[in-house]
Amino acid sequence: MKRLDCKALDDNCPMAWTRERFDLPDDLLYFDGNSLGVLPAGAAADIAQTVTEEWGQGLIRGWLEADWFTLARRAGDALAPVIGATEGEVVLTDSTSVNIFKLCAALMKKSGQRKHVMMEKDNFPTDGYILEGIIDLLGRDHELQIVPRTEIVSALTENTALALLTHVNYRTGEMFDMADLTRTCRLAGVPIVWDLCHSAGAVPLRLNDWGVEYAVGCTYKFLNGGPGSTSYAYISRTALDRFSPVLTGWFSHANQFGFEEGYREADSINKMQVGTPQVLSLRGAYNGIMSYSDVPMENVREKSLKLSNLFIELAEERLSHYGFDLASPRDAQKRGSQISFYHDEGYAICQALIARNVIPDYREPHILRFGITPLYMRYVDVWDCVEIIADIMDTGAWRAFQSASRSAVT
Amino acid sequence: MKRLDCKALDDNCPMAWTRERFDLPDDLLYFDGNSLGVLPAGAAADIAQTVTEEWGQGLIRGWLEADWFTLARRAGDALAPVIGATEGEVVLTDSTSVNIFKLCAALMKKSGQRKHVMMEKDNFPTDGYILEGIIDLLGRDHELQIVPRTEIVSALTENTALALLTHVNYRTGEMFDMADLTRTCRLAGVPIVWDLCHSAGAVPLRLNDWGVEYAVGCTYKFLNGGPGSTSYAYISRTALDRFSPVLTGWFSHANQFGFEEGYREADSINKMQVGTPQVLSLRGAYNGIMSYSDVPMENVREKSLKLSNLFIELAEERLSHYGFDLASPRDAQKRGSQISFYHDEGYAICQALIARNVIPDYREPHILRFGITPLYMRYVDVWDCVEIIADIMDTGAWRAFQSASRSAVT
Repeated sequence: MKRLDCKALDDNCPMAWTRERFDLPDDLLYFDGNSLGVLPAGAAADIAQTVTEEWGQGLIRGWLEADWFTLARRAGDALAPVIGATEGEVVLTDSTSVNIFKLCAALMKKSGQRKHVMMEKDNFPTDGYILEGIIDLLGRDHELQIVPRTEIVSALTENTALALLTHVNYRTGEMFDMADLTRTCRLAGVPIVWDLCHSAGAVPLRLNDWGVEYAVGCTYKFLNGGPGSTSYAYISRTALDRFSPVLTGWFSHANQFGFEEGYREADSINKMQVGTPQVLSLRGAYNGIMSYSDVPMENVREKSLKLSNLFIELAEERLSHYGFDLASPRDAQKRGSQISFYHDEGYAICQALIARNVIPDYREPHILRFGITPLYMRYVDVWDCVEIIADIMDTGAWRAFQSASRSAVT
Repeated sequence: MKRLDCKALDDNCPMAWTRERFDLPDDLLYFDGNSLGVLPAGAAADIAQTVTEEWGQGLIRGWLEADWFTLARRAGDALAPVIGATEGEVVLTDSTSVNIFKLCAALMKKSGQRKHVMMEKDNFPTDGYILEGIIDLLGRDHELQIVPRTEIVSALTENTALALLTHVNYRTGEMFDMADLTRTCRLAGVPIVWDLCHSAGAVPLRLNDWGVEYAVGCTYKFLNGGPGSTSYAYISRTALDRFSPVLTGWFSHANQFGFEEGYREADSINKMQVGTPQVLSLRGAYNGIMSYSDVPMENVREKSLKLSNLFIELAEERLSHYGFDLASPRDAQKRGSQISFYHDEGYAICQALIARNVIPDYREPHILRFGITPLYMRYVDVWDCVEIIADIMDTGAWRAFQSASRSAVT
């Protein structure tokens, strides 16, 4: 494999055209689209239009005339095909953490004698923090049960109240078999909430087909919605009637502008909304979601695996003798859309790469993550990235960053 | 009083200069800044910079290099002087509804034997809906006690767990004596959460001086933050240590990027944050808050009352025989920054005004609201507004809108 071979792969790539959908910085190798996605072409103009025309000129009329009022639902409907959901099952609202609270608190409230709340060990921290908070708030003797990935199924008992699982692990990129686990949990009478932060837009999802009832995710990673763009919540049509919200704000009311004195929940996915949506960030999310329109997720997956396999292959050739150990599953079927390596000097290497305009990120402990984003990543980008890592190791350039103090944000 | 007199008032107004801080639509009389504020001059360019440079070019580096990470706190510190708070007591986060949940749920969780949760009758609906949701979620026999405005104090008992009060009523603009009620509630051992949605930027607030411990509010009304811009939460320094959050997301953790397995709450106002902030909407909020910098709230209040008194005076001259009854307190000291009228045909009149480029809004039942926004409203605007209302009534033009079906958003 030479760089020219990578170039040829790009020239013949059936997904090469999607790169034109984004405004990418020059001279940057961006491998952090799994943390914050890139700017869709046209999004800046669209958001500017929302600011200057819809708000600046339209003012309050924007809620109807610019249709801000239904944007959260329209964005949800646009996202639905990307995650294998149906119209009316997805709404954009709040942050992922708040949405986890909303789903899990409502389910735990109804858990009866079942008291164990199960989560994967090494899950993204906020998921566990939120569960701790709910347990403490409810005060009904729920217990957080933190279980290694491989022991989820064996840990299910008739005392299991809820499972909160992240489909693709944020550190390693290891992916659960969502269909299988969902079936198993449901057979055991255990509601399961899926966190899709590292899945949506990264791997094909078939929530409806897999019997998934509840899910949340962010829109600012693979979905390119912009910093902190509005999160989404999914409840399947089959579960919707059974679900009653606990954060019962006016946007979840059956008759919102009737301003009734008492609360009545909406009979639609609106019941997952709470307060007024943050329209500018929602507009960012909408643009990001639209960057996936007419892009079959099977094609995204195919290219994701090719890029990932190339990364692993090149890394093993050039980097393994420098102490890079693959932290992601070698089996492509068990991997999301990122490649992670353990390295004792991961933090310094990450800083050295950033100084060379290569952007991965770093997660404790000792994990270097490289997000694989097929909509705008080229095979030559992978080649160049590994070359630069190798150069940093060959020359020892990373040592200059060894004593760097950690930033507040990693 | 003639239009020329109003013009003279504008020419001599010491606050006339603040109008230059906004990009206002031509040919529009905007009396709905109490519902959605206007676009600050420079905000469009600033938000565009966040989108194209900080996100588009900076990508993940924006969290540190563009300081998105601390923006919620910096915006809170900028808001603090507007509401009489101190640095470190205010943070922008989530929506008002979610923030009401966070404060009230945490306080009700600790309410012990006290079970009555008190709210004003005719409060903005979401406040009551959220309380109903918390009561149901906690399942600890709390009861919602909806009390007429005048009976708040007499309804306080040793069974009162919490009072949630909106400082300025959204329909009538009637204002509570915050200092007095706060003192009374605290003497009775009742924590009180103030909803400042219609107060911040509208009337002078001295939260610290008045002993206020907990407050929330939105930034998209008088504070001009843009549609649905990020809400804020306030906890006084004196109450902060006693307060433990219930929505315990990673942004409220004492060591957020340590990714510790267990939750530990931050010892700062960060404990009111939950998930990743919606940066674009937060940037809007920040710009809006900055539109108040170096504008003493006493001056805002002085002009607000002059504009309001002028509105009432002109309306009584020109409109009272058409069935407009003042719904706002005549006593200026008891009024926020809006003038409301009851009128049986309020909805049709509102639509007729919008067709004439005058924008008030309408709230059930039969209330026409006119927001008074001294930062950009002129005396001639009030004059012209009343003239156009009078013309619509004189000519009967409003009748054409009598059968108009209600919009989804009013």
